[in-house]
Amino acid sequence: MEPNLTDPVQLTAELIRCPSVTPDEGGALVLLQDVLTQAGFDCTRVDRGETANLYARWGAKGEARSFGFNGHTDVVPVGDAAAWSQPPFSANVVDGVMYGRGTTDMKSGVAAFAAAAVDFVRDTPPEGAIILAITGDEEGPATDGTVALLDWMADQQEAMSVCLVGEPTCPNEMGEMMKIGRRGSLTAYFTATGVQGHVAYPHRALNPVPALARLMDRLSSHVLDEGTDHFDPSTLAVTTFDTGNPATNVIPADCRATVNIRFNDAHTPDSLTAWLQQQVDQISAEMGVQITTEISVSGDSFVTPPGAFVDLVANAVQAETGRVPELSTSGGTSDARFMKNHCPVVEFGLVGKTMHQVDERVEVAQIEQLKAIYTRILQDYFA
Amino acid sequence: MEPNLTDPVQLTAELIRCPSVTPDEGGALVLLQDVLTQAGFDCTRVDRGETANLYARWGAKGEARSFGFNGHTDVVPVGDAAAWSQPPFSANVVDGVMYGRGTTDMKSGVAAFAAAAVDFVRDTPPEGAIILAITGDEEGPATDGTVALLDWMADQQEAMSVCLVGEPTCPNEMGEMMKIGRRGSLTAYFTATGVQGHVAYPHRALNPVPALARLMDRLSSHVLDEGTDHFDPSTLAVTTFDTGNPATNVIPADCRATVNIRFNDAHTPDSLTAWLQQQVDQISAEMGVQITTEISVSGDSFVTPPGAFVDLVANAVQAETGRVPELSTSGGTSDARFMKNHCPVVEFGLVGKTMHQVDERVEVAQIEQLKAIYTRILQDYFA
Repeated sequence: MEPNLTDPVQLTAELIRCPSVTPDEGGALVLLQDVLTQAGFDCTRVDRGETANLYARWGAKGEARSFGFNGHTDVVPVGDAAAWSQPPFSANVVDGVMYGRGTTDMKSGVAAFAAAAVDFVRDTPPEGAIILAITGDEEGPATDGTVALLDWMADQQEAMSVCLVGEPTCPNEMGEMMKIGRRGSLTAYFTATGVQGHVAYPHRALNPVPALARLMDRLSSHVLDEGTDHFDPSTLAVTTFDTGNPATNVIPADCRATVNIRFNDAHTPDSLTAWLQQQVDQISAEMGVQITTEISVSGDSFVTPPGAFVDLVANAVQAETGRVPELSTSGGTSDARFMKNHCPVVEFGLVGKTMHQVDERVEVAQIEQLKAIYTRILQDYFA
Repeated sequence: MEPNLTDPVQLTAELIRCPSVTPDEGGALVLLQDVLTQAGFDCTRVDRGETANLYARWGAKGEARSFGFNGHTDVVPVGDAAAWSQPPFSANVVDGVMYGRGTTDMKSGVAAFAAAAVDFVRDTPPEGAIILAITGDEEGPATDGTVALLDWMADQQEAMSVCLVGEPTCPNEMGEMMKIGRRGSLTAYFTATGVQGHVAYPHRALNPVPALARLMDRLSSHVLDEGTDHFDPSTLAVTTFDTGNPATNVIPADCRATVNIRFNDAHTPDSLTAWLQQQVDQISAEMGVQITTEISVSGDSFVTPPGAFVDLVANAVQAETGRVPELSTSGGTSDARFMKNHCPVVEFGLVGKTMHQVDERVEVAQIEQLKAIYTRILQDYFA
């Protein structure tokens, strides 16, 4: 029997069977394009570099109200396939639980919003547009994924009024959390350079290790903030400190350390870069060691403050699950960091407990429930 | 023509031609044993493990006055042989300068004191004993070298009243420095252990890097002492700090650092170990990170304070070179760190500038001068 691809569970299963490990498209976007085209969506592949992306719009371009969904079909590698209790691309269902890479992150989410959109435009064609922007590179470098879709949308004067990202957001129970923002992420790479020498003659050398150690202590000890209205306090972690000198009688010439900062809306990449440089300059002045810094920003912080759009999503979640979702800004980054440059964005999706793990899995009933929530959101938005 | 092996220059050349890279004996100790046996010395090979050692005594065992020389015939590897301007085991003489591995460190020194001793006992047989304790492992682990000779001497009730180590001691000019002690060397290996985790959730992890960084800053910032009567200030160097975590979104589970301390007679290995443990305990209490410490002591500090023996050597140096030698305790370790457990010990030898380098070399005239100094020391000691 042919699967019913407008059923969110069957669509999820078919997507799981597409081995779309970043950057492979794996057939997932082709499948979605078929389903959406048949449902009357205007579909465009927006590929860039190695990355496949799909843009699908129902309704006319330039509608005053257009509801957007964002998600991704690429998945992280399966790890040790032999450790899985079901083959990782099988979508086998055992006791009402579907197994497979991408079952939570986030093929179920994509299937749920695609199925909700298809049903909605068929049953109650809205006055406005529904847009699905789906990428094949969220788990990888993410340079040619949602960013490419947004670049193309700007070129084509395509626009969403609001956007819902279907990433898993619930720690343990369906409906307990939605995300209204994310902290930003900045990585700083430090290299301290001194003068190599023999430990017996330290006055002829300049040891860079104590300088970098002091810098790491200073940075780690600093309280970046106490949290803001919608955010936990920003955090800073020294992720590595390396020298690679095996000789106990040699003072090394240089050493390196890396710091990652997850920052809230009390900071910007520029303000953090300036602060880091000030700390580096201070240490260099104290200890005479040259320290260079390279900064890499993988996401600015953002928040969609509580208001009409947030309330609409929260109310739909509560109506379908009986739970009032916490409005969170915690956790890692997602493509919402890009969408927020385009329009107000929130995230709501499944329970994420098993994402990226062996035996990633989802309760089948939760896929149905997620579709119902997305459907209610569309109904309320266009009501 | 057969070389005259009681001539210090010819003996040095013959020793250079023995490729005695640690731990190879290379024929060097066999050659010395021949020369010394012919001169009336009672010679014993005191080999232990892979190491060859030679003990030679002129005079009776148990003499009230016995003057000891200590040195080594093993040499460090030649490095890039093609980079030498003369073959490294050739002992070729160019413009009055002899080239070869061991010309300064320290086959010239061994040849000079052997030649001085042979001439002295032949020309003016002393009332007392002259002892040469020569090892084939000073440049290597040094566990079966001078230590083995001292163990054997204790077993055999062999004893030196005083000992002169013939290591190169002069930075630039013959006679400008002798060593009356050495700093000790202690190496501490630290491992800090926390709890691995995702940088986005630092409250679920415990980062060991800031704790170890603070410890390294504290240790490096501490003034161990301001120097003592005969010593420069003790020094501490962090030689390496390593984590090996390539992931910028992961807080690592552990990290390691190594510290080397060169310490004077204001400290002992025990006092330093106690201080380090106190600092570790303080950091662990502050930051909740477990830190383990392994200590390795490669030499205690020692000094032979200015007095009759030091004056005797210094006066001989001044008489032959016109320079008053500085009484130094600077620089790296030598086998004097072992001899000091047996009897008062000082070190005097050649200009050490080229030791361990490509084109290691010595002015031939300085070998003659060194023999003259050693001869004068013997004359004055037995006068």
